[in-house]
Amino acid sequence: TIYTIIQTVTLIPGDGIGPEISTAVMKIFEAAKAPIQWEERNVTAIKGPGGRWMIPPEAKESMNKNKIGLKGPLKTPIAAGHPSMNLLLRKTFDLYANVRPCVSIEGYKTPYTDVDLVTIRENTEGEYSGIEHLIVDGVVQSIKLITEEASRRIAKYAFEYARNNQRTSVTAVHKANIMRMSDGLFLRKCREVAENYKDVKFTEMYLDTVCLNMVQDPSHFDILVMPNLYGDILSDLCAGLIGGLGVTPSGNIGANGVAIFESVHGTAPDIAGKDLANPTALLLSAVMMLRHMGLHGHAKKIETACFDTIRDEKVLTKDLGGNAKCSEFTADICRRVQDMD
Amino acid sequence: TIYTIIQTVTLIPGDGIGPEISTAVMKIFEAAKAPIQWEERNVTAIKGPGGRWMIPPEAKESMNKNKIGLKGPLKTPIAAGHPSMNLLLRKTFDLYANVRPCVSIEGYKTPYTDVDLVTIRENTEGEYSGIEHLIVDGVVQSIKLITEEASRRIAKYAFEYARNNQRTSVTAVHKANIMRMSDGLFLRKCREVAENYKDVKFTEMYLDTVCLNMVQDPSHFDILVMPNLYGDILSDLCAGLIGGLGVTPSGNIGANGVAIFESVHGTAPDIAGKDLANPTALLLSAVMMLRHMGLHGHAKKIETACFDTIRDEKVLTKDLGGNAKCSEFTADICRRVQDMD
Ligand SMILES: CC(C)[C@H](C(=O)O)[C@@H](O)C(=O)O
Ligand SMILES: CC(C)[C@H](C(=O)O)[C@@H](O)C(=O)O
Repeated sequence: TIYTIIQTVTLIPGDGIGPEISTAVMKIFEAAKAPIQWEERNVTAIKGPGGRWMIPPEAKESMNKNKIGLKGPLKTPIAAGHPSMNLLLRKTFDLYANVRPCVSIEGYKTPYTDVDLVTIRENTEGEYSGIEHLIVDGVVQSIKLITEEASRRIAKYAFEYARNNQRTSVTAVHKANIMRMSDGLFLRKCREVAENYKDVKFTEMYLDTVCLNMVQDPSHFDILVMPNLYGDILSDLCAGLIGGLGVTPSGNIGANGVAIFESVHGTAPDIAGKDLANPTALLLSAVMMLRHMGLHGHAKKIETACFDTIRDEKVLTKDLGGNAKCSEFTADICRRVQDMD
Repeated sequence: TIYTIIQTVTLIPGDGIGPEISTAVMKIFEAAKAPIQWEERNVTAIKGPGGRWMIPPEAKESMNKNKIGLKGPLKTPIAAGHPSMNLLLRKTFDLYANVRPCVSIEGYKTPYTDVDLVTIRENTEGEYSGIEHLIVDGVVQSIKLITEEASRRIAKYAFEYARNNQRTSVTAVHKANIMRMSDGLFLRKCREVAENYKDVKFTEMYLDTVCLNMVQDPSHFDILVMPNLYGDILSDLCAGLIGGLGVTPSGNIGANGVAIFESVHGTAPDIAGKDLANPTALLLSAVMMLRHMGLHGHAKKIETACFDTIRDEKVLTKDLGGNAKCSEFTADICRRVQDMD
């Protein structure tokens, strides 16, 4: 007898279309017999001691126990002083690497066909330090914080990722010609780490040059590693190249295997509850999650089925150019997954 | 008799291919009978009192007298502590607005055909403050400085530009969700200024969203106004959409009519002196200059001739897909300009 170890994942369905696309993912996982069980949690922040916003304890405990989370879109909190939920989650679990593979999807037409790159964004510091001051009336400063430790950590992550995913090059993206000390430090750490990965090619490029070259010919890029804000920008730009946030997966990775995978699109309140949403981004994020957990067979199966459904062009949600409902799109993927057995 | 007032412009030919493309522009201006005379100046920085790098006095005086400059590419100085020449020029003459019209060029194929937008970048502060500190070993901060005055000034410039150029909308590009105080101040000033320009539509967008939408469909954008670094990034991205820095003009505008127009590509040392360079970016920058000086007829004539030569596809430099020399490409434009008389 072969025993399958069933792992538990914290599921944060999220707001708007979040519950529908989460259901879609669960159905497809079931069809693929992925050895996962879900522990659903709500992360709507609560006010903790001292008035600080925090993740509810049940969600925190669940993540601390399971280490792995899958998360749908969360609506932007409107209470004054309330942080972005995304930032709060990254901070709470020290998810220092934001990883977004951008791969052209066959059958989904964009001006680009050969995109196959990964943006790796430092997720904890930089322009996101939250430190700002009013110097005198009408003069404000924001502080961009770069540390040796966080820079080394993200550089190391990028090179390890390259090795573990059969990728050949890492490009550090920076503006060290302008921010000589901060981006200079980031760049120096990348260079130092590169010394230990002679099997991976290392290059350096200015952010502006990357943006220019990216829209002219993205096929040259492989892994890109960069400070927080540059990653925010470049990851969205690259998502645009392959079809937008509706088809782009994302993972936030921390130390000791802790990680939250998420779709980075919005909650789409206008179509929520109408069975019209496209679950692709959350599904591909869940595929990233399976790989992170070492479940490569299940990952491949689900990914193939999803891309086959899109390439086939018969059962597509509206945003992908079709008329199918979310449940029909989901059923088509389930059928393909089952046919593979 | 009609007297033509001949205006003098400071010409900074620059390094590498700079002199060749400057000669091309001068020839075309002559063919178009543009009422311009050139005062050539070298801007290689010298060490002033206290060891600070500065623009040589002859160049500075020339610019102060003429107010208008045209500049080719300058090589990046390698001396330690030497600032970028571009930054030094912007600073010396307080050129607070960097303006880059990006318009699709008929006949020059890129994945995009309907680009017609202008990026307007705050050119004096933000992430380019040059203020950085080592806090403790391994921890560096860079300061992004946003002032009410510079924000209001650039916002006003953008709206005036919209009005004077028959454009209908201005979008402020920001990350005020993250940098609430600094980008918040910038945004507030944009909103305030917008109140005085009810004839121009005003919108606000996150930088990441702009990048994503830009590569998906740039045709929706009109005028974009933003802090320094965002402008650095977005102006290069947009240049990429229409064919790169070889065909993109740029103007740096200060108070009281002072302005330097420049090609923003490199010095291309590998082809320098070989009559192979493409003068389009400098020529289109010179066309922007003519418009800035009120010489709209000459501007239109030269611009039309340049675009006709490109659309015609018979006499193109190598980077544009042809075999022509710089001098042949130039002669073709001259011929067309003369034929228009
Ligand atoms: C929601 C927002 C705070 C966030 C960011 O700026 O990082 C988003 O754009 C992202 O990329 O996850
Ligand atoms: C050369 C460099 C200092 C400059 C910048 O970063 O502003 C350049 O990229 C530009 O856009 O003019």
